[in-house]
Amino acid sequence: MEFNEFQKEAIKKHEEWHGKIEVNARVSVSNAEELAIAYTPGVAAPCLAIQEDPDKSFDLTRRSNLVLVVTDGSAVLGLGNIGPEAGMPVMEGKCALFKAYADVDAFPLCIASQDVDDIVRTIQLIAPSFGGINLEDIAAPRCFEVEEKLKESLSIPIFHDDQHGTAIVTLAALHNSLKLVSKAKEDVRIVISGAGAAGVAIAKLLMAAGYDPAKIILTNRSGALYDGKEGLDPGRAQIASLTNGNKFKGSLQEALVGADVFIGVSAPGLLNKDHISRMNQDAIVFACANPTPEIMPDEAKAGGAKIVATGRSDFPNQINNVLVFPGLFRGALDCRAKAITDKMKLRAALAIADLIEPEDLTTENIIPHAFDKTVSEAVARAVKEEAIQEGLSQI
Amino acid sequence: MEFNEFQKEAIKKHEEWHGKIEVNARVSVSNAEELAIAYTPGVAAPCLAIQEDPDKSFDLTRRSNLVLVVTDGSAVLGLGNIGPEAGMPVMEGKCALFKAYADVDAFPLCIASQDVDDIVRTIQLIAPSFGGINLEDIAAPRCFEVEEKLKESLSIPIFHDDQHGTAIVTLAALHNSLKLVSKAKEDVRIVISGAGAAGVAIAKLLMAAGYDPAKIILTNRSGALYDGKEGLDPGRAQIASLTNGNKFKGSLQEALVGADVFIGVSAPGLLNKDHISRMNQDAIVFACANPTPEIMPDEAKAGGAKIVATGRSDFPNQINNVLVFPGLFRGALDCRAKAITDKMKLRAALAIADLIEPEDLTTENIIPHAFDKTVSEAVARAVKEEAIQEGLSQI
Repeated sequence: MEFNEFQKEAIKKHEEWHGKIEVNARVSVSNAEELAIAYTPGVAAPCLAIQEDPDKSFDLTRRSNLVLVVTDGSAVLGLGNIGPEAGMPVMEGKCALFKAYADVDAFPLCIASQDVDDIVRTIQLIAPSFGGINLEDIAAPRCFEVEEKLKESLSIPIFHDDQHGTAIVTLAALHNSLKLVSKAKEDVRIVISGAGAAGVAIAKLLMAAGYDPAKIILTNRSGALYDGKEGLDPGRAQIASLTNGNKFKGSLQEALVGADVFIGVSAPGLLNKDHISRMNQDAIVFACANPTPEIMPDEAKAGGAKIVATGRSDFPNQINNVLVFPGLFRGALDCRAKAITDKMKLRAALAIADLIEPEDLTTENIIPHAFDKTVSEAVARAVKEEAIQEGLSQI
Repeated sequence: MEFNEFQKEAIKKHEEWHGKIEVNARVSVSNAEELAIAYTPGVAAPCLAIQEDPDKSFDLTRRSNLVLVVTDGSAVLGLGNIGPEAGMPVMEGKCALFKAYADVDAFPLCIASQDVDDIVRTIQLIAPSFGGINLEDIAAPRCFEVEEKLKESLSIPIFHDDQHGTAIVTLAALHNSLKLVSKAKEDVRIVISGAGAAGVAIAKLLMAAGYDPAKIILTNRSGALYDGKEGLDPGRAQIASLTNGNKFKGSLQEALVGADVFIGVSAPGLLNKDHISRMNQDAIVFACANPTPEIMPDEAKAGGAKIVATGRSDFPNQINNVLVFPGLFRGALDCRAKAITDKMKLRAALAIADLIEPEDLTTENIIPHAFDKTVSEAVARAVKEEAIQEGLSQI
């Protein structure tokens, strides 16, 4: 494979690091006394205490701060199905972010199977060692089924970041953008390009947030999804039946005519400035395909977009999940939330949006910076409060 | 459950620690540039490099230094089958020791199933994230089958510490003990009490080391194991057919008459000083049941034992696996050994024994201290050298 200079540098750095995470001891085990407490014979007592009440595993082991970051390697970044070993650099990076941004211990695993039952069973069998499960880079529609089955069977937070992390940060960015263009959420026409894990989750969360389902259109390579469209799997058929009230049947580009908002979680270069110019006034364009957006920011602006965001760090308004997952799990772990609910996601999105003070809110500053570590505290607080309000705290 | 003062102290300490291990970031991810290399978009390049050559996962992720410490919670310490959550304090302790004694990153997992196929399948599916697998506290005979199936299917070191760690350190202690009593390994009659994971592995390793199989007798609750004894599972039947050349059929206590060596990996208080007094001259007694030995050291001495060892830190001659597993995996990881062989185990045992200089070798000092961190270096060196000699290094 031919790598460019940036890629070579990234590989060289990864070789030097030899891993982006490590497992450290939190206790000293350097003499007989210390060994006798942390290991045999002393360790028998906490074991027995947990046997009597398995919930004590949250107090007597690392479980209360420990999240599993797990993939099947089937949808890693934009690279597709690259296998269990090759997904690990992403998982390790995610774990490093968990620790750096929210002091959550996160451990990366790749499961060498892409069978739903294998994935679900494996995670169920190792779940007693963890306080939460972050599903990652699992392809749609498998990811929906995996998440659903795990939520039904486990009473720790299960969160597929590619779906819900993306949806939360997108909602936060859109919330602030609408303020800038003075449009109401009930009124805007939204076109979502990409009906994979992220696109479907964004549509659902927008609906939960009070956006008008009838005015949301999801599109994929086959054009707009509409109720009754042939060839859709159950997950897509469901979202198609809930959205696109007029049963619009055209292409992405046709759907954009008169739309207020474009949200791209799809593929590079699908749009040009002419497509943008046919959108409604004060168009909002979130072109989040990574690393190459559906349309580059300057071209979107040239087409008349008022606000442009991407997934990239080298343009303003980076829509990045790192604003979400560290704080979300921090909050959920802090109150031992039984699950992550839609309301918790909505509160997280508002917490992120509200960090931009009114006087700082501009078309180039709709959302906090990805590396702003104060975000996770605000998200954690909101998630924890909501969990307690919903009676989902287990402490 | 009523806990004594020591147990209460151990529980309190574990509450304060809130976990004996943690997962830390090895890289800084505090600004856009760092994020861009360690996470998106930079992380895509190492992913692609590993996709092209999965072996590169050893260079580009933590895999080369990462061991899974995994149990099914079925034979935790002497506590028996206490379940997946309750096994975790032991697994975490083990991981802390791995790091402290050999800078090996070890991660603890409990599998919530005691079905062989479940355990094997789960470990197989997550193995691509690890450089080695340390099986722990899995009950016999299940542990034999789990280990065998994993060794057949994976090309990373698989090591059931309760079997082989115990066998290696026992062999080291016996090797030095025989020097002190001037007996030859071919001549000594050995009685092993306990035919579980540890007992069977000790017998096998003694045989591999050149001890006379005919002179080794394994016993369990039903007395001596002998070729053709009824009611033995295949693993026990095999070891019974290889040992006990005279087909002795009596009890443990009867088997001890005239024996040179007692090795106990069984249950508290099985022996008294009269039993020891019927052993051969210069008797060697390793009473390793934990925390209460088969016979207390003072009573064994009163019975005439020349050398006494236990599993405990509060008596001389502690036979403790911590002398083995950190260095063994260090050596195996350092050369990416494909497997752990009998020869590697023998080399490890000799390396441990040889750390006691001839002038320091006394009946109260047959083996290094458990918390002597230099041991792991010697073991690592021996294991690595042997792996390379056997052509099992994959570097």
